[in-house]
Amino acid sequence: MTLEPVAYRDGPVDLSGMLYRPVGKPRAAVAVFPTILNPTPAVEAKARALAEAGYVALIADFYGQSPADFPAAVALSTDLRADPARYRKRLAAALDALSRAAPGLRQAAIGFCMGGQAVVELAREGADLVAVASFHGLLDTGAPAEPGTVKARILVCHGDADPLVPREQVVAFWEEMDRAGANWHFHAYSGVVHGFTNPNRPPAGGPVAYDASADRQSWAAMLSLFDEVFG
Amino acid sequence: MTLEPVAYRDGPVDLSGMLYRPVGKPRAAVAVFPTILNPTPAVEAKARALAEAGYVALIADFYGQSPADFPAAVALSTDLRADPARYRKRLAAALDALSRAAPGLRQAAIGFCMGGQAVVELAREGADLVAVASFHGLLDTGAPAEPGTVKARILVCHGDADPLVPREQVVAFWEEMDRAGANWHFHAYSGVVHGFTNPNRPPAGGPVAYDASADRQSWAAMLSLFDEVFG
Repeated sequence: MTLEPVAYRDGPVDLSGMLYRPVGKPRAAVAVFPTILNPTPAVEAKARALAEAGYVALIADFYGQSPADFPAAVALSTDLRADPARYRKRLAAALDALSRAAPGLRQAAIGFCMGGQAVVELAREGADLVAVASFHGLLDTGAPAEPGTVKARILVCHGDADPLVPREQVVAFWEEMDRAGANWHFHAYSGVVHGFTNPNRPPAGGPVAYDASADRQSWAAMLSLFDEVFG
Repeated sequence: MTLEPVAYRDGPVDLSGMLYRPVGKPRAAVAVFPTILNPTPAVEAKARALAEAGYVALIADFYGQSPADFPAAVALSTDLRADPARYRKRLAAALDALSRAAPGLRQAAIGFCMGGQAVVELAREGADLVAVASFHGLLDTGAPAEPGTVKARILVCHGDADPLVPREQVVAFWEEMDRAGANWHFHAYSGVVHGFTNPNRPPAGGPVAYDASADRQSWAAMLSLFDEVFG
């Protein structure tokens, strides 16, 4: 596997992705959208795992800078997401960068927390993605999917006890996606909260916690979906 | 792989299972509960796939007879399930038969349609199972799980458009299982109806239909869970 930084732009904003190339001919290309903190070691480990499974993976850059702490990340995220169209343009810039870095490959996108919400936003917009996988992503939106727009297969891996994504939001998401005619698979894990894929989180006791089983099973589900759609 | 019939009893009722043994040392033992029609070629193929994956698999017998047609199966099922305690005793007899045929192995149970409901009934009763997997099984019950009784990890693979299992039943199931303190993973597949694992069903157009993707992904999810719990 090889790593290389990828500079790209969204209008005037300079962004910096990290590209993971597998050994041998890649199966497809996957954009990896990080959490609200921008890339973390946990997200980097996922990109590495994708490359080990044969995929070119690009970790996207939300902000063009590393937030100093969580409040700074919230401020950057709030500003970026205030305008859904501007936000989606920022996300699409990563797909364009991935196309340039790995031309001719079909694409998927995955994401974690804010990144999980991001990949569903791309699906809503009709991005040319074969599949998206959201891990503990928020499911609500300021711009619901219109009928016929969603091209990507959608896999949502969700902690059923995630305090940021109550069951009402889950059912509303199903209804939105059904109205749009999307093809979705939804996995819910009992007692599992936000951030369950991040082994650097505590194993229990708060609104954000690691769950080894949900992490393992959700990742296996994503790889199995990718096996199906990319052959 | 080898096949052998296994005669067993539930009180005065003679039952006839079919045992599939893998080549080499088995990883664990799995009871396979068929549909309301009792064993069908589709269920036999699943038992064979389990043996190919290294598991001893026993297809259970619900009735001690082959129903002549669907109405006959409904009559047999209705009679058997009229008394939940009697029904659960019939199901447990298959686990006992599996224990005798494959002693010393840890057990799981899987089932399809009525069999999917059956394995959740076993979990509710506190059967000594490491895991159960329900494929397009009904989720309601005459005897909800009591707190602390459920030992098995539960995987439910569910067609979101299954007319026999509306969303209200789904949410009620989650609530029941949470009250019981069960560990459950729930997978919902959009637009997928009842019987989605049976390739002998039509691909679309009715309340029962095959869905190749949901079949593939649900089976992969079960194998991945078994990998986790059986090592």
